[in-house]
Amino acid sequence: MKLICTQNNFKKAIFNTERVIGKQNTLPILKNIMLKTEKGQLKFSATNLEIGIITKIGAKIERKGKITIPARLLSDFVNNLPNEEKILLETKNQTLTITSGNYNARINGLDAADFPIIPKLKSSYLVSLMAQKFKEAISKILFCVAINENRPEFSGVNVDFLEDKIILAATDSFRLAEINLKFSDNEISDNYRDFITKKNTAIVPYNTFSEIARAINTETKKVNIAVEENQIFFEIDGVQVVSRLINGKYPDYKQIIPQKFSTRVVLAREDFLRAVKISNVFADSKSGEINLKIDSKKSGLIIQAQSHESGENKVKLKADIVGPSQEIILNSRYIIDGANVISSFNIAILVNNESSPVGIKSINDKSGEILEDYVYIVMPIKK
Amino acid sequence: MKLICTQNNFKKAIFNTERVIGKQNTLPILKNIMLKTEKGQLKFSATNLEIGIITKIGAKIERKGKITIPARLLSDFVNNLPNEEKILLETKNQTLTITSGNYNARINGLDAADFPIIPKLKSSYLVSLMAQKFKEAISKILFCVAINENRPEFSGVNVDFLEDKIILAATDSFRLAEINLKFSDNEISDNYRDFITKKNTAIVPYNTFSEIARAINTETKKVNIAVEENQIFFEIDGVQVVSRLINGKYPDYKQIIPQKFSTRVVLAREDFLRAVKISNVFADSKSGEINLKIDSKKSGLIIQAQSHESGENKVKLKADIVGPSQEIILNSRYIIDGANVISSFNIAILVNNESSPVGIKSINDKSGEILEDYVYIVMPIKK
Repeated sequence: MKLICTQNNFKKAIFNTERVIGKQNTLPILKNIMLKTEKGQLKFSATNLEIGIITKIGAKIERKGKITIPARLLSDFVNNLPNEEKILLETKNQTLTITSGNYNARINGLDAADFPIIPKLKSSYLVSLMAQKFKEAISKILFCVAINENRPEFSGVNVDFLEDKIILAATDSFRLAEINLKFSDNEISDNYRDFITKKNTAIVPYNTFSEIARAINTETKKVNIAVEENQIFFEIDGVQVVSRLINGKYPDYKQIIPQKFSTRVVLAREDFLRAVKISNVFADSKSGEINLKIDSKKSGLIIQAQSHESGENKVKLKADIVGPSQEIILNSRYIIDGANVISSFNIAILVNNESSPVGIKSINDKSGEILEDYVYIVMPIKK
Repeated sequence: MKLICTQNNFKKAIFNTERVIGKQNTLPILKNIMLKTEKGQLKFSATNLEIGIITKIGAKIERKGKITIPARLLSDFVNNLPNEEKILLETKNQTLTITSGNYNARINGLDAADFPIIPKLKSSYLVSLMAQKFKEAISKILFCVAINENRPEFSGVNVDFLEDKIILAATDSFRLAEINLKFSDNEISDNYRDFITKKNTAIVPYNTFSEIARAINTETKKVNIAVEENQIFFEIDGVQVVSRLINGKYPDYKQIIPQKFSTRVVLAREDFLRAVKISNVFADSKSGEINLKIDSKKSGLIIQAQSHESGENKVKLKADIVGPSQEIILNSRYIIDGANVISSFNIAILVNNESSPVGIKSINDKSGEILEDYVYIVMPIKK
């Protein structure tokens, strides 16, 4: 391999691919990035065997070839280089020589023949989603995934591909989040309708969505998605991310989302979040128990917590309450997680009784209506 | 104790005192802040037995008293409170009730009688230094302190109090930094001259200077310093910091600082730092060995590194060289540390031969002269 490319493109490609390389990998070649000439381009590949990343840049290729190079070393080297337009790469046996201005390095690599194969997309992308909306959806879902779960299907996000939307859902059996991402016909490919008649769900690992959220920067416009057999493919700003899917059937979570709530509490999200955070300070550190008293006559919400170690606290908040008074015990950290991702000014707390799931939803700040595209459900603590 | 104070002052006082409370403290009372009414003020004290912090705020005191309260809990509570002007404190037995607006908490404390005594300044402050200059001096010295050192005197910064300046020095026996802080007569108290005839050195623990550097914010104007027996006292924006001194005699480090250097290399600090950082990537991870070739004929500096694991690199830099050519082996990380704290545009690398200490100094960017107020010395690696 012998080629010239721009330093800027080279740096970007390293940055985009090295992310997937974990420190815990014991197999030396998984710490490497594969560089390979391909049809007048230089291709960068990295994988942790769960997620693979591929990106390509333009290059003036003098001699074809491939090699794998330790990602950390390559990244530390190129990121410290002074700005020069060009960078020269040349391989000899299993070493790569990099030259940029007065800087010259020779890096020991490993044989590209031993690099794991990253699955290729055979057909084409199915949907093309608005990147920022998708990233926001991931942030509202991902924290509910059970990471250390014996049931593998709980360790991912369930994705339902429907006629006019995608539904993302995650649960750790204590709480659950579901979000609807609607799209228009021009956001789907011709084969999308065909695809959903054959297969319409996928369980995507936590780390994959976490990586996708990181890969979407503030400039990113679109995220392309495709599913093939046991793999999901994403394309973000020309970078391809491939991930295995989790085998198994996702639990039928729909049944635990209450269709109706008898009591509706609406108040400023910030006030509510602050009160729960303060109560969390006093809550028992294991159970996180806080007590919510909803007094519909006084239009008041009282949040209380206490523990032997610390003491106790009490916060009184004014709220707009419809329905009967309630008293319910909840895990403060779960409530904080939910209230944190609501982006409306007001928040709705929805209750049926002390033993039924509590709902947290956004409010349309103009009309005052409850928004139904996102729902966060928490199981109360039974006394 | 029963009193009212402003929430803002209360928050600030907690912020200033809680810093000293380490997570590793096993004695429960050391995790607490002592609150005590004193002459119409509320006094906050915290200590880790090495460093003690005291600060006071105005308060409307209805009933005198004292109590100690877990710092973390107090801090988490008050920092989450919504902005209200006032805060009410009331103790009953060993509990503290705090009320602010609709927020009310009762926190379990411990008996103030069991709180360790923090030494008090008996006389008055000796010097009043420019805070920003002092903070910068600490940052140029502190990284040379040997933290895990069997010889306790190496685990602190040596402070020499002289007629018209203070000299700070630190060494871990591989490298050494010394800085001169000159002051004018109006920065010292009447008893300063008297003090330096009796005692004129102190070894200040690493953590103490680290804490002092943190306590100086961008607004801070002055730092007052006093030494009494085995303690050093600082006053920063009304906050008192007291620390024990390290017993022992600091080594006579002056003798290892070369008085003259035969070769002087001057080049842009940023270029030099970048080249050493890149070489560090390729240097042996244990020894950090890099090779500096100073070619006075070609006005060039070549920095090279290599290791079995990674490969090798070579950087050529132009430099202004006076004196004979040299070749010397250094620890890249030590050079990075030194070049990092130099604030002039150009940097001077000063060499005698391959086995004598190398000096790093700042340059007066206007005159091109070497500045002598700060010197950083590194021992070369002998082959």
